[in-house]
Amino acid sequence: MTVFQVDFEPVGRRATIEEGKTLLEAAQSAGVGLVAPCGGKGNCGRCKIKLQSGTMNTPSKDEEAFLTSEELAEGWRLGCRSIPRSDVKVILPPESLTTTQRLQVEGQDLAISLNPAVHILDLELKAPDLQDLVSDTSRIRQAAAREGSKTLSFDSPVLEILSLLLRQNNWKVRLAVWEEQVIAAFPPGTALLGLAVDIGTTKVAAYLVDLETGETLAKAGAMNPQIGYGEDVVSRISYCNENINGREELQTRLIETLNTKTADLCRQAHVSRDQIVDSVFVGNTAMHHLFAGFPVRQLGESPYIAAVSEAVNLLARDLGLNLNSGARVYLPPNIAGFVGADHVSMVLASEIWKAEDRVLALDIGTNTEITLASAGKLFCCSTASGPAFEGAHIRDGMRAAPGAVEKIQFTGGDFCYQTIEGKKAVGICGSGILDAAAALLEAGLISRTGRFEKTHSRVQGDGKDKAFLLVAAEDTGHGRDIRVTRSDINEIQLAKGAIRAGTILLLQAAGMEIEDVDRVIIAGAFGTYLDIQSAIDIGMFLDLPAARFFQIGNAAGIGAKQMLLSTGRRREAETIANREDYIELSMHPGFTEAYMKAIYF
Amino acid sequence: MTVFQVDFEPVGRRATIEEGKTLLEAAQSAGVGLVAPCGGKGNCGRCKIKLQSGTMNTPSKDEEAFLTSEELAEGWRLGCRSIPRSDVKVILPPESLTTTQRLQVEGQDLAISLNPAVHILDLELKAPDLQDLVSDTSRIRQAAAREGSKTLSFDSPVLEILSLLLRQNNWKVRLAVWEEQVIAAFPPGTALLGLAVDIGTTKVAAYLVDLETGETLAKAGAMNPQIGYGEDVVSRISYCNENINGREELQTRLIETLNTKTADLCRQAHVSRDQIVDSVFVGNTAMHHLFAGFPVRQLGESPYIAAVSEAVNLLARDLGLNLNSGARVYLPPNIAGFVGADHVSMVLASEIWKAEDRVLALDIGTNTEITLASAGKLFCCSTASGPAFEGAHIRDGMRAAPGAVEKIQFTGGDFCYQTIEGKKAVGICGSGILDAAAALLEAGLISRTGRFEKTHSRVQGDGKDKAFLLVAAEDTGHGRDIRVTRSDINEIQLAKGAIRAGTILLLQAAGMEIEDVDRVIIAGAFGTYLDIQSAIDIGMFLDLPAARFFQIGNAAGIGAKQMLLSTGRRREAETIANREDYIELSMHPGFTEAYMKAIYF
Repeated sequence: MTVFQVDFEPVGRRATIEEGKTLLEAAQSAGVGLVAPCGGKGNCGRCKIKLQSGTMNTPSKDEEAFLTSEELAEGWRLGCRSIPRSDVKVILPPESLTTTQRLQVEGQDLAISLNPAVHILDLELKAPDLQDLVSDTSRIRQAAAREGSKTLSFDSPVLEILSLLLRQNNWKVRLAVWEEQVIAAFPPGTALLGLAVDIGTTKVAAYLVDLETGETLAKAGAMNPQIGYGEDVVSRISYCNENINGREELQTRLIETLNTKTADLCRQAHVSRDQIVDSVFVGNTAMHHLFAGFPVRQLGESPYIAAVSEAVNLLARDLGLNLNSGARVYLPPNIAGFVGADHVSMVLASEIWKAEDRVLALDIGTNTEITLASAGKLFCCSTASGPAFEGAHIRDGMRAAPGAVEKIQFTGGDFCYQTIEGKKAVGICGSGILDAAAALLEAGLISRTGRFEKTHSRVQGDGKDKAFLLVAAEDTGHGRDIRVTRSDINEIQLAKGAIRAGTILLLQAAGMEIEDVDRVIIAGAFGTYLDIQSAIDIGMFLDLPAARFFQIGNAAGIGAKQMLLSTGRRREAETIANREDYIELSMHPGFTEAYMKAIYF
Repeated sequence: MTVFQVDFEPVGRRATIEEGKTLLEAAQSAGVGLVAPCGGKGNCGRCKIKLQSGTMNTPSKDEEAFLTSEELAEGWRLGCRSIPRSDVKVILPPESLTTTQRLQVEGQDLAISLNPAVHILDLELKAPDLQDLVSDTSRIRQAAAREGSKTLSFDSPVLEILSLLLRQNNWKVRLAVWEEQVIAAFPPGTALLGLAVDIGTTKVAAYLVDLETGETLAKAGAMNPQIGYGEDVVSRISYCNENINGREELQTRLIETLNTKTADLCRQAHVSRDQIVDSVFVGNTAMHHLFAGFPVRQLGESPYIAAVSEAVNLLARDLGLNLNSGARVYLPPNIAGFVGADHVSMVLASEIWKAEDRVLALDIGTNTEITLASAGKLFCCSTASGPAFEGAHIRDGMRAAPGAVEKIQFTGGDFCYQTIEGKKAVGICGSGILDAAAALLEAGLISRTGRFEKTHSRVQGDGKDKAFLLVAAEDTGHGRDIRVTRSDINEIQLAKGAIRAGTILLLQAAGMEIEDVDRVIIAGAFGTYLDIQSAIDIGMFLDLPAARFFQIGNAAGIGAKQMLLSTGRRREAETIANREDYIELSMHPGFTEAYMKAIYF
């Protein structure tokens, strides 16, 4: 059996394949996300790759249909039709990757210099005797002074355990010190850990980190349990306003989930929650307030004022978090009522705030927060993009889960789709909904105003019940048609219109043209999976070359980890929040016009 | 009816009496504590006074028996036999006062300059609008910066209520600020209060103070509920060692009592406990540790090490104290395992630490802590004086309560006694026990070794059952004899021996003779009521003129109040603790000898 090596660039992945297998199969075996909405049948033309070195089979008829002769001459091929005849190196353009290009933010975990807010102080003390009667704390202070800590104080929980610990460990001790205060004490050698959490309106992502090595020991995700009280921020604020103890209830539910997840993380990593001495939580302003127990009523009423915008240091025990009793909680600053610490954390992790080029960064969600970095200035806004991309308010919408249609393409006169994990379709998730609009537009089935225009075998029903049949009942997992309705298209229009309008107004504020944008950073879970080209096609994103777009994943979570490991990063987050020039769209004189214009395709 | 005015000096009290009444009656009506163990029958000779101006009746035969002709010529009289014939002014010598001279420590409450650790910041803010979107906390920080507070931060509980409070009070707010941190927020004009507590092993004294005016709004006393777990410090430490959660149990009981008393104080003063934003607690090292939740095991084992000696700042909410959720708790420093923050507080309030003369200050209790101030130096020790003066381990001992024999005197060949509130005798309290030893000694009934020597109608029984009949059954409130046994005398010997030995060793450390002591300060509840002369007579106190002794009452509590009202006082307490040169008696080479010598009368 002959095997060949395939090197995928620029992602830097290598696959070994048997002779006769396609590049698409090689990509699938290596976990490289090469797009293939048609499932590799050669009829969508999306899996374009470029041969850089080595030899492959002769281009097929299918490829000639999708590629120009210049492209073929340059080495462009379709992955599903390319069969290596030697070891090969191929280039994957951004538009051929399911997740396009990724900034290597995960890799930056270790790139930052470790300087955690809670640091280790290892001490070896002389035991007391009748000639040396100083108290346990004085003994520690004297030893610490010799190490350069002159003004050490003690948080109360550590004082409860310190005396016994010293005597059980032969007067050797490892202390966790936060701002010259001893907050926890351990037997020598115990690893000190930190918890970084991104509290999304929908999902929570938690990371357990070793504060000494910077290593991520475990990660876990969970649904935000507050979903049961309202899908979006506004409905949760209403719940709090309308129910006595409503706010406390939402806080308690969230803390419970965080405690459960923390226990999971500790089990995964074989550590004790008592070792967790520091934590960083990021979230939008409402999640931030609901987590910390701050009032939210004023967040829901014009002029939408945050109770707290500065960075705050809290005690885990005050919040009911089951970490070490002395553990600290750091919340980075919020910018405004609807631009929160999670956005600051994303701007921090992506480093766009110190970029020399002009960068647009978007956190797409029920609210979309946008920062435009230009010439050292930062402009930001928040725009109500609604829950369409979470699958809500969409007839057959669903969250990104197995069986969700995640990609749709109009190609070769028909529509093809791809589901998560290849399961039989049961609904459409955010990226599929976005693609649906783009594909219907490309097929000419809907007009610029979003109305169904042309007759087509898949467009069924009449008037406002008119809908596009995406998957017929017999092909679905639940035996019911999956359709895209006129109303669904409208929801997408409102969402993309809000995002575009916000983008345009930020450009105006910075005195920039669309073409001036050097990079567009797309963060967050939905941002990771959406099809950039579809988003450009429907006008949600600026019409710029796909190569300028970067999907960076959960940058807010990465930022939180960085702030756990570096006080420098915390100071930078505070600088970002201070430098962001917040533009309140609800009172912007140009907003209504920009929005009305942007909802058309 | 003719009435005369009587001025008592140096106490500065005035009484108005009908013609024919005695000076003793005048003193009683004016609440001046003129001693009268015989009840005013003219047969004890204790109520000596000196006429300074005005005229009185001719001296009686009784007076001629107790006063020399020189004394009579100088105007000395017995209060119970003196009947004014005009307005008079009389001098009460220290030995004629039940509580002798008092340092006016209570009066010093207002003498200190007010500079509480928690201070008031009143702000008037501009309401936010769409042109001014800064968060509530930033708005406060901006306003505070204009008042000079540049680095204001916020404790979490205040953030929970701040936004609503601002909106309900038209953007006017009163903030409680501790070390540049906002810890509580109130409607404008709300009085901010503090709580000062002296946690004694037996009794707890609490004061509610207005932080703005320095006024004491209410005071309350309570038994320390830990008595149920052990009468003294050592037995409570044993309880903690022997019972899982024993320490937590003792802490919880104490906190419950403190919460109940705080509620009482608030009811008395018609205020809310939410207004209490700061607190100072003093107690001996064991009480300090048990209150704060610090371990006590090592306090009970040689070398008796305090877990914590530095001053500590805690959060009331961490301790379960029902004050404002942001309220602070300040614990002044301890000096050693058996010289605690209460002694520091006493040294602070009495101001002996900056005295220019040489002063001995004693806190008499189950443990007696002594400081000797000499030439800017402070020497201190703790000595196990036992519970005899609390009435414990004494056959008919009891606490100072109505019906307790509080004074006993041998005079005119017989013994007379006085009970608290003049009720029928039911037992003997500390000061009575001390007097009993002195009286038996004076009567020659006991020897220097404490053995019953002479036969006397009141000395009954044989061998070690020999006892002195103080009150016969028919005269008591409960129908049983009240006796002083040989064993009782021994308990007193051990107690007074310990106190004297400690005193002598401190003098040695300072290179001083007994005569060099300019003042002796006696603090604490028992110290307030004991008879100085009896204590001198039995050798517990140094043989110095009575005028050098000052009974200053609950100076520890006064010190706690001062620390509540002045950060300067807190710094002074820390200076005192640092300057105290602690002498550990248990390892002092001269202690055993000094103690053995001191237990003889």
